Amino acid sequence: MALRSWVNSANNAQTDFPLENLPYGVFEGEGGPRIVVAIGDRILDLHGCADDGLLADAGEEVEEACRAARLNALMALGADAWHALRGRLTALLHAERASKVERQHAQAKLIPMKNARMLLPVEIGDYTDFYASIHHATRVGKLFRPDSPLLPNYKYLPIGYHGRSSSIVLSGTEIHRPAGQTKSANGEITYGPSQALDFELEVGLFIGPGNAQGTTIGIDAAEEHIFGLCLVNDWSARDLQAWEYQPLGPFLAKSFATSISPWVVPLEALAPYRLSTDQRAAGDPELMTYLRSRTSHPQAFDVTLEARLSSRAMRASGMEPMRICHGNLRHLYWTLAQLVTHHASNGCNLRPGDLLATGTVSGPEDGSEGCLLEKRHRNEPVCLPNGEMRAFLEDGDEVVLTAYAHRDGMPRIGFGACAGRIGGAADAE
Amino acid sequence: MALRSWVNSANNAQTDFPLENLPYGVFEGEGGPRIVVAIGDRILDLHGCADDGLLADAGEEVEEACRAARLNALMALGADAWHALRGRLTALLHAERASKVERQHAQAKLIPMKNARMLLPVEIGDYTDFYASIHHATRVGKLFRPDSPLLPNYKYLPIGYHGRSSSIVLSGTEIHRPAGQTKSANGEITYGPSQALDFELEVGLFIGPGNAQGTTIGIDAAEEHIFGLCLVNDWSARDLQAWEYQPLGPFLAKSFATSISPWVVPLEALAPYRLSTDQRAAGDPELMTYLRSRTSHPQAFDVTLEARLSSRAMRASGMEPMRICHGNLRHLYWTLAQLVTHHASNGCNLRPGDLLATGTVSGPEDGSEGCLLEKRHRNEPVCLPNGEMRAFLEDGDEVVLTAYAHRDGMPRIGFGACAGRIGGAADAE
Repeated sequence: MALRSWVNSANNAQTDFPLENLPYGVFEGEGGPRIVVAIGDRILDLHGCADDGLLADAGEEVEEACRAARLNALMALGADAWHALRGRLTALLHAERASKVERQHAQAKLIPMKNARMLLPVEIGDYTDFYASIHHATRVGKLFRPDSPLLPNYKYLPIGYHGRSSSIVLSGTEIHRPAGQTKSANGEITYGPSQALDFELEVGLFIGPGNAQGTTIGIDAAEEHIFGLCLVNDWSARDLQAWEYQPLGPFLAKSFATSISPWVVPLEALAPYRLSTDQRAAGDPELMTYLRSRTSHPQAFDVTLEARLSSRAMRASGMEPMRICHGNLRHLYWTLAQLVTHHASNGCNLRPGDLLATGTVSGPEDGSEGCLLEKRHRNEPVCLPNGEMRAFLEDGDEVVLTAYAHRDGMPRIGFGACAGRIGGAADAE
Repeated sequence: MALRSWVNSANNAQTDFPLENLPYGVFEGEGGPRIVVAIGDRILDLHGCADDGLLADAGEEVEEACRAARLNALMALGADAWHALRGRLTALLHAERASKVERQHAQAKLIPMKNARMLLPVEIGDYTDFYASIHHATRVGKLFRPDSPLLPNYKYLPIGYHGRSSSIVLSGTEIHRPAGQTKSANGEITYGPSQALDFELEVGLFIGPGNAQGTTIGIDAAEEHIFGLCLVNDWSARDLQAWEYQPLGPFLAKSFATSISPWVVPLEALAPYRLSTDQRAAGDPELMTYLRSRTSHPQAFDVTLEARLSSRAMRASGMEPMRICHGNLRHLYWTLAQLVTHHASNGCNLRPGDLLATGTVSGPEDGSEGCLLEKRHRNEPVCLPNGEMRAFLEDGDEVVLTAYAHRDGMPRIGFGACAGRIGGAADAE
């Protein structure tokens, strides 16, 4: 079934990056940042391919966008251009479809992934974080508002808020434990390092062409504005959050750092993993017209999501990280298209490269909670394999998020990893 | 007392832009955006001045920054560089201190302000909006939460939230009335044009050098990170806001548009208008150490703020706009320095050109309410001079914000204007 590439490692059933994936990223080349796609255990330098004429069939605009330092220009070109480039790259890396000369030239543009220093793939203008998992909203809501975990607006519109762009960092960047004001159980207010540092397992989508200010994006055009997906860890200081968040929402509890994965998986690569899974239950309000899709193709994606935790002590004794979350993107109450359409429904302009994250993706089952806060509904901390206990993250802990789409007989479309290790508290200047 | 410029219009007591002001902006030159300062009814092209060697005394870095298309590079240079440039410009435009040759050359770089098309002066990476006026927070809080208008955290930390950068527009840009979900008094949820469009009279500060992620900014270093101030109108759809804002804060109610003035008034120009005005009342909690300044110089600024409204009918009949708000920046509960320090207190990196706005600046008196929502505590709509009534803004209404610092015998440091007119609803794509 699977397409065969002449890059042998891409044909390994375990790789995140078969020929059917071709996620985009940016690495640090000798002369500066360069756009690449991942293929097996290699990365293909698209700037070099464009200079060598290998992308000519995709058009001059595409070639020019592949020579940029970030993916924004390519994102701005729109779905037809993405499809053309993807088609061209698929042919170029295909075992039978690439000519001998093409293959020789492309071979010269391959770099071992392990030697490549990856960079933030996109210049992110605005970052928005949603709250699209009803399971997450319900479990967290119970902690803050036991009587009304889910607020009355939840099933009418995708709740979201503006996040902080400046502190988005690439997977692998150390995370400084934030300081801030907290209110203790006895009512004392103090400023100091957070004692309730958490991760949030999320998926992000990058905006393609976007819309002009004062215009909207119809629900059935929304996916044309989604370039691709990445992993997002929206690190959260729960103690800061509890004290600061009313009435204007999360602020410093989130803005110290957000990690993203280096790879942007094209939406087109996930098309075989679409599925229909209406999360709306009997008795839920009717979907508002502007959020109601008229297309027949399924709007959810069957993507497995996992989070793994390792402590410093575990790593020192050679232990494997422990899987602490196992969920799926299909459990979102709101579709990706609905997030885009709702965001632009007031005339807010979305720009190429803007990042919209889903919010913590949690499922209905035990074990599918996408953050540590949610696990508190079980009233017991996480027990690591060496006996250490975790209510929240401690210094030296590393969280690694991964994701993949997979079904029997079909290739594995992996997202790579989004990793972050907790360092010390922020230093005063 | 006042400095005399050889630009005569700068010596007019009514001008916003005497020699003591010299606010920075960017205008559309023939070859692209160019940095300028305002002086009387003229603008001085700093790119041209740098090319002509007129800014050599301020140093090469400053000259280079003055040739940029936006103010970010100049902002990044820091307070010493700003002081050097300001000193150089003051000498260049001074009636006695400029040499004849300098004056001739500078004269050639002057452009009538009325002929200049101004542009957004800064590439704004992140925009944060605070809630720093206790009078605003109290009046608005009463409408949403009559029992507890001021939440328990208000006097401990500056409440703020992340805003939307993409939809920040320059004064003069038409504002599209946003559409969105609202809940009517009888509980019906509908999607349509906002029926409760409001303005918010705010002041913004632009970040200078800023801080690296994971570091903080000490309170007594905070003002070194403030390049200057502008006017901000944080347009708000109150009906969208009431329905969407829990639990994560304002989102689409704000993100459709935010207007800023074209001029950035250097903090140094406002130094003579500093004043001590501790808004903390007896019984308020002690200020947290990290927010407590040890400097002796006053931390508040005596800046008069005004908002004027004109309807389409008023303008058609030649009527002057009606002043609907008259306040002062001194009434903020939190100082500008505290906003900066708190924002970075968790290690969040602030970048050159980031915009921090105060939130609606309201005073204690009737007439000092900085938005229409607040006027509802009086239970009567605003009556315009032609008899029209306004609970909220109607199509064709224009709101003009202005600000100035002034005292007897001292020059008037004006902010120019931040204007916006309400157009129709957003069009579907």
